[in-house]
Amino acid sequence: MPNPTAAMLVIGDEILSGRTRDANMHYLAGELTKTGIDLKEVRMVSDDAPAIIDAVRQLSGAYDHVFTSGGIGPTHDDITADCMAKAFGQSIDVRDDARSLLADMYERTGRELNEARLRMARIPEHATLIDNPVSTAPGFTIENVHVMAGVPSVFNAMVASVLPTLTGGKALLSQSLTIMRGEGDIAAPLARIAADYPQLSIGSYPFQRDGVFGAQVVIRGFDGAMVDEAILRLGRTFPA
Amino acid sequence: MPNPTAAMLVIGDEILSGRTRDANMHYLAGELTKTGIDLKEVRMVSDDAPAIIDAVRQLSGAYDHVFTSGGIGPTHDDITADCMAKAFGQSIDVRDDARSLLADMYERTGRELNEARLRMARIPEHATLIDNPVSTAPGFTIENVHVMAGVPSVFNAMVASVLPTLTGGKALLSQSLTIMRGEGDIAAPLARIAADYPQLSIGSYPFQRDGVFGAQVVIRGFDGAMVDEAILRLGRTFPA
Repeated sequence: MPNPTAAMLVIGDEILSGRTRDANMHYLAGELTKTGIDLKEVRMVSDDAPAIIDAVRQLSGAYDHVFTSGGIGPTHDDITADCMAKAFGQSIDVRDDARSLLADMYERTGRELNEARLRMARIPEHATLIDNPVSTAPGFTIENVHVMAGVPSVFNAMVASVLPTLTGGKALLSQSLTIMRGEGDIAAPLARIAADYPQLSIGSYPFQRDGVFGAQVVIRGFDGAMVDEAILRLGRTFPA
Repeated sequence: MPNPTAAMLVIGDEILSGRTRDANMHYLAGELTKTGIDLKEVRMVSDDAPAIIDAVRQLSGAYDHVFTSGGIGPTHDDITADCMAKAFGQSIDVRDDARSLLADMYERTGRELNEARLRMARIPEHATLIDNPVSTAPGFTIENVHVMAGVPSVFNAMVASVLPTLTGGKALLSQSLTIMRGEGDIAAPLARIAADYPQLSIGSYPFQRDGVFGAQVVIRGFDGAMVDEAILRLGRTFPA
């Protein structure tokens, strides 16, 4: 049986103007190759609704899977979610499941879930959410299109959430922990935990928040009890 | 008057498999922005004739200019030139002007212009050649499509050859000199020459040949006498 085929759609003026160098295409290409999915085509378009809608319809019809990156943040030029709804004839609004994820996170971190941030809970009616262990605001899968963030650490984490579901394997379980230390401080203990749990996949997604370095550590595996055990050990190693 | 529009087509299995990270898109995007040409879309496809032909026809019809990168080398999977001829209904064969450029260069460097290398002189009948000051084998312009190499140093040099011709300005003249030293050795004298000739553009394109580092230095400007003067001074600074 031939491998499944895929295309990628990179969305964003900042890429086409040369202000930002895209990193997600190269990352996805490598991950798909490891997974046995053939990336056949990439398109990059600007934050322009007709261009996005046209491209996603064409790619969705031509390939088994489509992965998009960019345009799902809180600002006015983040139009990807609305374009996806339009491309597939679905309605779109703030959805309760996405809103509750965001509300929990903002309450936990003592920040306000304002109107702009609530935009990130706008999800097409029949889409399923994609887990975002780095910054909570979810991506989504609509038809055969996986809609993900442009920020590389978030994109990479979402790819890790989605890919195992495409290969017909068992569901991958995950737990995550935010550690407010620089990656240099956590790398060695993390490597020891990874060595003790070779069946688990342990990812670290660094960020900077209010000038402080931190990392979201995500532990994934098929054995839920083992994932729980590893995340507990991580929590004891790095008490809040 | 709105800016002219452009698209880019990146050709190559090695990009889509994740083995190579494309660098040309980001470079071209920056150069087009400086030139006042709006890059509206990028596509990346594999070394697959129908995919290449289809993409270049669509992009050529939709935008003022199309820039391609990759697939014009000497190996069997370099099919870009043949695809371009097919896309625009032109015949293609080894062309005398391109063959003579290659023959001169291989004679000068004491290497053989064999069958494989002669492939790089296959040019569609009505295309015009694009100067390649780094490694001689030319690119070409067919209709509104500028067909260039995938190797970043060559791609960058070809972009510098093409862009001035698109903005309706005067023809830019160029002279080049190969210097068999590492760029670290030539940077300071080159900077002094550049400072003395602010009206000229001086580019250095490094390469490694048979284990020895060298650089092709290209001096461009509108005043031919000044370009000649600067290249003579460069030659005296770095005698062969």
